[in-house]
Amino acid sequence: MLKSAEVLWSEVETQSAYALFQKAYEREAAGLLTMVQDKTSQITKVDDLWKLHDFLSAKRHEMDGKYDQRQSVIIFVFAQLLKEGLVKNDELSFLDPDKQSKIKALARL
Amino acid sequence: MLKSAEVLWSEVETQSAYALFQKAYEREAAGLLTMVQDKTSQITKVDDLWKLHDFLSAKRHEMDGKYDQRQSVIIFVFAQLLKEGLVKNDELSFLDPDKQSKIKALARL
Repeated sequence: MLKSAEVLWSEVETQSAYALFQKAYEREAAGLLTMVQDKTSQITKVDDLWKLHDFLSAKRHEMDGKYDQRQSVIIFVFAQLLKEGLVKNDELSFLDPDKQSKIKALARL
Repeated sequence: MLKSAEVLWSEVETQSAYALFQKAYEREAAGLLTMVQDKTSQITKVDDLWKLHDFLSAKRHEMDGKYDQRQSVIIFVFAQLLKEGLVKNDELSFLDPDKQSKIKALARL
């Protein structure tokens, strides 16, 4: 397992990583918003409104946990975002090659 | 305070009360659904989606509590529904005059 002490982060890498986090979050949020607007417009029964509420509760919890900004887990977060298509390979080019390789390997798991 | 022992309910009154509860719930739910659909369609930022989620959490909690079917509190529930316009005066005509008076008096408080 990677520990923060094993991975050195430059100031530029850290700043760029947080910026990419923000971008991925906004992408996920935009996709969620479109999906919720679409679902909501089709609802005809209040039970389905409560189902949508349950879905949003779960999604919010998931997103709150996913974008963990602790440096020790950034590699894992990017691997997950890459896997989900919320971050693209070429957007990771600001990272040193070793970190990029680790992220890509983890994303394939 | 009214206690269930102080108020006698006929079988017809009880059945009709539950049916009117259901009607009021459906009215409130329909209004809520229309409002949520309207609000959702206007959202452009995910923060506003989370605000809508908070609003729905509160509303769901409120509605879960409001339609309390215990016979001992039906008078109070109807007073609240009357106050909110979810039940109309003439829909209470299945109740004996004493209950109707109590409900109307409470609704004016």
